[in-house]
Amino acid sequence: MARQHHGHRVDYSLSDADQNIHNAWDNSLDPVLTVEPGDVVRFECRDAVDGQVTIECGPEEFSNVSFDPVHPLTGPVAVEGAEPGDALVVELLSLQHKGWGYTGFLPGEMGLGLLPEEFPEAGVHIWDLEDDVGHFVNGIEVPLDPFPGTIGVAPAEPGEHETLPPRDVGGNMDVKHMTAGSTVYLPVEVDDALFSIGDCHAAQGDGEVSVTGIEAPMFVTARFGLKKDAGIEQPQFESDGPFTPTGQDERMYGTTGIADDLMEAARLAVRHMIDHLHEERGLTRGEAYILCSAAVDLKINEIVDAPNWVVSAYLPESIFPEQENGDS
Amino acid sequence: MARQHHGHRVDYSLSDADQNIHNAWDNSLDPVLTVEPGDVVRFECRDAVDGQVTIECGPEEFSNVSFDPVHPLTGPVAVEGAEPGDALVVELLSLQHKGWGYTGFLPGEMGLGLLPEEFPEAGVHIWDLEDDVGHFVNGIEVPLDPFPGTIGVAPAEPGEHETLPPRDVGGNMDVKHMTAGSTVYLPVEVDDALFSIGDCHAAQGDGEVSVTGIEAPMFVTARFGLKKDAGIEQPQFESDGPFTPTGQDERMYGTTGIADDLMEAARLAVRHMIDHLHEERGLTRGEAYILCSAAVDLKINEIVDAPNWVVSAYLPESIFPEQENGDS
Repeated sequence: MARQHHGHRVDYSLSDADQNIHNAWDNSLDPVLTVEPGDVVRFECRDAVDGQVTIECGPEEFSNVSFDPVHPLTGPVAVEGAEPGDALVVELLSLQHKGWGYTGFLPGEMGLGLLPEEFPEAGVHIWDLEDDVGHFVNGIEVPLDPFPGTIGVAPAEPGEHETLPPRDVGGNMDVKHMTAGSTVYLPVEVDDALFSIGDCHAAQGDGEVSVTGIEAPMFVTARFGLKKDAGIEQPQFESDGPFTPTGQDERMYGTTGIADDLMEAARLAVRHMIDHLHEERGLTRGEAYILCSAAVDLKINEIVDAPNWVVSAYLPESIFPEQENGDS
Repeated sequence: MARQHHGHRVDYSLSDADQNIHNAWDNSLDPVLTVEPGDVVRFECRDAVDGQVTIECGPEEFSNVSFDPVHPLTGPVAVEGAEPGDALVVELLSLQHKGWGYTGFLPGEMGLGLLPEEFPEAGVHIWDLEDDVGHFVNGIEVPLDPFPGTIGVAPAEPGEHETLPPRDVGGNMDVKHMTAGSTVYLPVEVDDALFSIGDCHAAQGDGEVSVTGIEAPMFVTARFGLKKDAGIEQPQFESDGPFTPTGQDERMYGTTGIADDLMEAARLAVRHMIDHLHEERGLTRGEAYILCSAAVDLKINEIVDAPNWVVSAYLPESIFPEQENGDS
């Protein structure tokens, strides 16, 4: 794939050894590496729950996963010359998974994900990522487009800040289009920026509705630059996508969610999609929820026709084996 | 384009003459036409504000536009055999504009659109749609992918219902992917369904942030069918897109909006995009707002990383003249 560049000059490598890992945004952390604009760094990144999930994991083990280690991030890297008001320019040169990943939902009582009340018990799928495809149940194949779920710089506000919510400085944005070949602009709030990265996903649907994409340990190679006095308030980016799973226009099945609240509209769209996947495609509701989180996109269709807004969920039909296509 | 089929069998035509037009959802309206499943109807549709905007319209005339006629719909059409619980199946066979359209924003005091407080005065752009391209300022060209902004059936609840908000039975959904070649499934709530259509857009960004797409009078040709006992709660659809402006993956510029409320996140993303278009692309803020409504897509990137959600706005760089590409 054109997006998967390899063989870039690499000036520095950071392994995922303990001394390079931290679990909170904190501008008092000592940098583990200092680089200059133009330098390329290869990061080894742990998965989001720091090794608790293994390739043999089932629903029972997954239900005992602790969310405490979220997220082990590699860094921080100091970028010389970065000052508050600048944008740190991060060119994502390549991402390489390690052959497997997982997508799941935790017990409803933990309150994570979009529909915790409908899924009291945990569920998980371990993905074989061989041949750069995500292998799901029933012959369903999800194309991979790896990206860092969490990418950001240290906030100006002192102290430790948890990594789950994204912030003005980036962090856990889960923007699936920040693929290899993309450039991310992060608002610098402290001297030397203090960049960290992790929580990589081999694929994800827009929305990440079950609170996991295809979570996977990964290597990320990135080149750093500075845009002085960029004055951006929140992250911006350039991306070539893909904006559909195959990078081409293709048949999608859409379910609308229509409500006077965007969150409720999103919940309705996902519920309708889970119904569709269960009734028309023969998935269990848990499998359907996992597939939505890994491969179904949420779009805001309209946000102005008061008092009701429309959010739709988009399912690419090409992920199903050919004999099943078009039976919806 | 493969999506633009012509030459279908047409069993019936409905002109946009007064007797075929209504401005409210109301299940007591007499049908203007009765068809059987399998029949094809060609609808002539008026624009959303019913002829008040002409090709010579400027901001001053536009600021006097009344929203009262919203939306003149063509219909209703009775479909024999449709019963509550069925889905009315509407195959959109072709859409043809009449060579021009408009996108604008009304005076802020009217409270319409996503950012009324930032745009106190009205603004408008009249689009020449020649060669099936939307011609904007500065050589910017927006690809056209016409769709009906409003498509629906009569609600079970008696009385007149305004057409601005979308409902369980569809209506003003503004789902831009309901292009020619798409199939729309509408939940039937009354006998014979009572289908109406109108408010066509030659193009629109996901979100329709200024409350107008490229509004255009248009012809729509559709084939009707029934899916008995479909039991869907809100509309569903199948679409081949396009899911990017060109139907191919292409470079996008993205601005994030990060907030603990999805509406506020969307506002931030659009504000950041207006800043970008103004500062990096030389548009006035009003032109930028119009371009966002016509050609910039809103996506929900994540909706689970409590307490902050991410909505991003996506600008396709291919709409700019070539010498300007890549200067952002």
